[in-house]
Amino acid sequence: MPENEFQSIEGKFPVQLHWGDCDPAGIIFYPTYFRWFDAATWALFASVGYPAKRMRAEHLAMPLVAADCEFKAPAEQQDRAEVRSRIARWGGKSFVLRHEVVREDGMLLARGSETRVWGRYVGGLGTPLKGLEIGEELKVLFRAR
Amino acid sequence: MPENEFQSIEGKFPVQLHWGDCDPAGIIFYPTYFRWFDAATWALFASVGYPAKRMRAEHLAMPLVAADCEFKAPAEQQDRAEVRSRIARWGGKSFVLRHEVVREDGMLLARGSETRVWGRYVGGLGTPLKGLEIGEELKVLFRAR
Amino acid sequence: MPENEFQSIEGKFPVQLHWGDCDPAGIIFYPTYFRWFDAATWALFASVGYPAKRMRAEHLAMPLVAADCEFKAPAEQQDRAEVRSRIARWGGKSFVLRHEVVREDGMLLARGSETRVWGRYVGGLGTPLKGLEIGEELKVLFRAR
Amino acid sequence: MPENEFQSIEGKFPVQLHWGDCDPAGIIFYPTYFRWFDAATWALFASVGYPAKRMRAEHLAMPLVAADCEFKAPAEQQDRAEVRSRIARWGGKSFVLRHEVVREDGMLLARGSETRVWGRYVGGLGTPLKGLEIGEELKVLFRAR
Repeated sequence: MPENEFQSIEGKFPVQLHWGDCDPAGIIFYPTYFRWFDAATWALFASVGYPAKRMRAEHLAMPLVAADCEFKAPAEQQDRAEVRSRIARWGGKSFVLRHEVVREDGMLLARGSETRVWGRYVGGLGTPLKGLEIGEELKVLFRAR
Repeated sequence: MPENEFQSIEGKFPVQLHWGDCDPAGIIFYPTYFRWFDAATWALFASVGYPAKRMRAEHLAMPLVAADCEFKAPAEQQDRAEVRSRIARWGGKSFVLRHEVVREDGMLLARGSETRVWGRYVGGLGTPLKGLEIGEELKVLFRAR
Repeated sequence: MPENEFQSIEGKFPVQLHWGDCDPAGIIFYPTYFRWFDAATWALFASVGYPAKRMRAEHLAMPLVAADCEFKAPAEQQDRAEVRSRIARWGGKSFVLRHEVVREDGMLLARGSETRVWGRYVGGLGTPLKGLEIGEELKVLFRAR
Repeated sequence: MPENEFQSIEGKFPVQLHWGDCDPAGIIFYPTYFRWFDAATWALFASVGYPAKRMRAEHLAMPLVAADCEFKAPAEQQDRAEVRSRIARWGGKSFVLRHEVVREDGMLLARGSETRVWGRYVGGLGTPLKGLEIGEELKVLFRAR
């Protein structure tokens, strides 16, 4: 782990692969992993006091700058797994999340990251987003103890 | 056709079935038809002067009350088809759309309907929706000539 | 309940609404309900001895003939609910499932049905499907006790 | 462009952003870009003589090793764009695709890549995949003239 890696709590988001998430090869259609990453990120924020209702009420958002994923082993229908998510790094107005998808037998299925901006809709929902300086009071919520 | 069927224009919305829209049986995953119905409805409204940008600017919406579909023949990857959409009936604040999905060789793949409310977000986007009386000035836009 | 309604066990399939399942109105994009119905059906069959792995190994499938849904109340991001599924009726080679989506506070969000064929890929996966006579040995697995 | 970049033809795959592909912020839900990349890749292969039907008949597949995307500008409902796809590099049994999503006014919305294996299901569909050596006869189909 690089030295500047943030010592983050780890969210655990349970998922299961469904029939409609698979492709004609009988394995996971890969954008499904990114759907899981996104839901896992929202769950991580909910776990520290930022559930969707609060985000919406305060016009907060965290749109994506970049995302990537390596696919390590094919998931099959009804496989159960866990998305393990942590904050890897904080920037001024952005941050990086690391996600690992681990099947219930311990097999690593996929590993990836998301880079997101922390921002607010200046004129309410549906108006342009303005990046916010990420302060210590936000970071501390994600610090491992 | 029942006598009270509205004489509607017919929208034609082109679609193609992609790898990720298919399931392990190698055919269309059925919620895909409903995704197509929804997009076809928005396209039909755009074609008569209600594109998404106007809907959003005027805080208009058309949420669903009910939807159904009969699946007639299995679509396969890269099949091209057309969703043919028409207004079947107008209620006071709601309306019914009929959709047919016809493959390029003329084969009927699916047929269904959506019942929607015509409404406005009273306090702007994200606030509760209020049904609006559907006036003649809206209906006339969809009347076949 | 009609007299010819089959006395079915009831499957309970937990779901949660995610950011990406919502639309710009901030509520559930309706095909999501059908994705949930489909996953709930597979889970119901798994619960009586037909998990996906067995279905695949025996080349069994249950493609759709029809599906419908009534939308009763709008679901919002991170809402938790349960899909309650039962066999409503058995035909010769087909069957009907009823699904209700109930939010954790007891609110009925949606109610619908699926009509499916019980069949087998005659030449293995990816080959045409042949409907199978549904015997007592299958029905008994779903009978409420 | 690095010197070892393959001189590839460029596929142009038209897309439109639909209501259900947007999130509560009113912009594209990011996994949609990866759905588009996947469909664009299949279209690129179809354009050089490998349509889905042939891939299926010959038990060929091209599962993912990795994927990434940078999001440059937010797409909105009913925006039309084009996915421009090319082969960036050939490995022994794998290859890299570059994708750019360009809105009809020329604005770059997103840019990413996919790394895929070229393989065959050794025992037919649904059986394990074996990577194939990528020969000149495949590469030449994608060479710009």
